[in-house]
Amino acid sequence: MNEPGSDEVERLQRQLAFVREIDSLKGVLRKNLLTDRSRRENSAEHSWHLGMMAWCLVEYAPGTIDLARAMQLALMHDLVEIDAGDTFVYGDGVADQAEREQRAAARIFSLLPEPQAATLWELFAELERGETPEARYVRVLDRLQPLLLHEATGGVVWQQHGVRKSQVLARMNEIEQHAPRLWPVVTRIIEAAVEHGSLIDE
Amino acid sequence: MNEPGSDEVERLQRQLAFVREIDSLKGVLRKNLLTDRSRRENSAEHSWHLGMMAWCLVEYAPGTIDLARAMQLALMHDLVEIDAGDTFVYGDGVADQAEREQRAAARIFSLLPEPQAATLWELFAELERGETPEARYVRVLDRLQPLLLHEATGGVVWQQHGVRKSQVLARMNEIEQHAPRLWPVVTRIIEAAVEHGSLIDE
Repeated sequence: MNEPGSDEVERLQRQLAFVREIDSLKGVLRKNLLTDRSRRENSAEHSWHLGMMAWCLVEYAPGTIDLARAMQLALMHDLVEIDAGDTFVYGDGVADQAEREQRAAARIFSLLPEPQAATLWELFAELERGETPEARYVRVLDRLQPLLLHEATGGVVWQQHGVRKSQVLARMNEIEQHAPRLWPVVTRIIEAAVEHGSLIDE
Repeated sequence: MNEPGSDEVERLQRQLAFVREIDSLKGVLRKNLLTDRSRRENSAEHSWHLGMMAWCLVEYAPGTIDLARAMQLALMHDLVEIDAGDTFVYGDGVADQAEREQRAAARIFSLLPEPQAATLWELFAELERGETPEARYVRVLDRLQPLLLHEATGGVVWQQHGVRKSQVLARMNEIEQHAPRLWPVVTRIIEAAVEHGSLIDE
């Protein structure tokens, strides 16, 4: 084996520093519980779940999908939470979310050498804009996954936070738009939660 | 929107049942700690980490890689642990591991409709055989990732279990074979652990 040059060594060191750094996503707690209610979910395992769903539900994606890109989006979509924290979509903190996440992206993505850092910025922006089939699909999954966990846990977190049906419907709107075949599942879950008293129907 | 047929409804129900079931992988604890030593890692977040690494380290993969397939392998590689549990590679339990994992695969994969269940069997067998570039690459990552976490945590788990340098070297052999550019990193980590006293050099 040839001795690697110092540029190559530095490149690998930066990639491994990034790999170590993103371990912290496992410590970022989301509001929703696991299906067994044992504890809150963290953002790394949530992202794994989205990646699995990206493969498993691809037939419901809006148009033809580059699965590798959709999986990448699913796996990296919450990286900025390492610094910015998870923002509960039905709570405070949504106001300055974008600014916090931009700062976080600047620090975390730049751990990687180019062009990988630039690729993460592109993926991040693609997801924010939500215009490509892959971005739309991952945004759909990012709404469906916690909905399924809220359903499996009897909507206990919704109830704790006094969440209203209208809030959930507004959040789920992208599913109706971009994955209409999944919409009956969404409405069934929401109606059952209202009936069960875990979502407020004002 | 047309009303979906009952076959379609059943298909989606089975896919969602699978999505719910695999949530349990978040409760399967591995031996290694997170980098901040706060707790043991679970197999779902470990799989997320491998998926991210599959993208990030693709230039070190053995040959040309189908990244979507490598990511799928990374994300699904521990699904059988939902029933079979995590097997510590330096401990007991390796003996009947294959049998336990086959039974687990039979139950978990068959939650999905065809041809998706068959695809999971194929991926599982591909990974076991380790003959394709994608399978070799994911097996490399599955060795490198815990090594990085052992390094970041001062090898405390190795020390607790009296792990020997020769055991780790044997386990890491596939990295030397299939990703030789990563090998200097591996030997450096192992040598430092021996020096530090967290690996036994008999």
